[in-house]
Amino acid sequence: MADHLVDLAARLGARCAALGLTVATAESCTGGLVAHLITEVPGSSAYLRGGIVAYADEVKRSILGVPAEVLVAHGAVSAQVALAMADGVRQALGTDLAVAVTGVAGPDGGSEAKPVGLVYVAVVGLGASDVRRFHWSGDRAANKRSSAEAALSMLLERASAVEHGA
Amino acid sequence: MADHLVDLAARLGARCAALGLTVATAESCTGGLVAHLITEVPGSSAYLRGGIVAYADEVKRSILGVPAEVLVAHGAVSAQVALAMADGVRQALGTDLAVAVTGVAGPDGGSEAKPVGLVYVAVVGLGASDVRRFHWSGDRAANKRSSAEAALSMLLERASAVEHGA
Repeated sequence: MADHLVDLAARLGARCAALGLTVATAESCTGGLVAHLITEVPGSSAYLRGGIVAYADEVKRSILGVPAEVLVAHGAVSAQVALAMADGVRQALGTDLAVAVTGVAGPDGGSEAKPVGLVYVAVVGLGASDVRRFHWSGDRAANKRSSAEAALSMLLERASAVEHGA
Repeated sequence: MADHLVDLAARLGARCAALGLTVATAESCTGGLVAHLITEVPGSSAYLRGGIVAYADEVKRSILGVPAEVLVAHGAVSAQVALAMADGVRQALGTDLAVAVTGVAGPDGGSEAKPVGLVYVAVVGLGASDVRRFHWSGDRAANKRSSAEAALSMLLERASAVEHGA
């Protein structure tokens, strides 16, 4: 997969390696694609500690520590759950930075309130949290790729905004 | 990624859906690719509960419960660790089946005893365990894909060999 997403992952990797930053991922709708892209880059074991693919809500609770009341109040596809997933994986894996993705990749699972293509991406660490809402209009595979690109871009942005220790 | 690996994941998915089987993944060298392929299939949330990308050995210990003495005695790239990773993720996520992949994707990280391309894949569940050794000769991306194909094939083989409850 020698494409621009791997190039983006390589830029993220160079930045993390230069600053000595460690990274973790928590993925729902991207299903492992973000971690896969990061690990396409040789030497990525220097900064990627690992990731959690939390497809079932029970995995979001038990492994990532997302509070059941947050899942009930806001639904799995929400800014609040994205932030809680990112916080959870960062704490579980002990990294500087973490990214989380939750959304509806499609073609099933959409609703009026949470349509297909709605995705939240959160990045936490180095003293800041950021969560953004996206609404993609592609098919399942395209929505996964667009979400993964947003996740890598937000990680790179965060790693680029700070010096290590900030 | 409309390729034969997604077709293989779709065949696995159809089998799991038909039998009501749940699946989990534990990935080291494939870095999330197995889970990504499984989740390219629409409706995969019915059987994939989630996965763990355990790149750092500490994640293999803390999240997957691989005993430190097994890691020390056999090394992370070993049949013993592959089996322990599969057992660990199956227990952590409470699934019928689990697959684990550990190996040296390259280009770095190889040694005389554990060369680049050496990969172990383990499948556990439904009353049986299976672990196999592979030695790929491709580049990093090709070795990841070959390993993911082996993982999906072994899961499908296991799901095809038994009726649910066996």
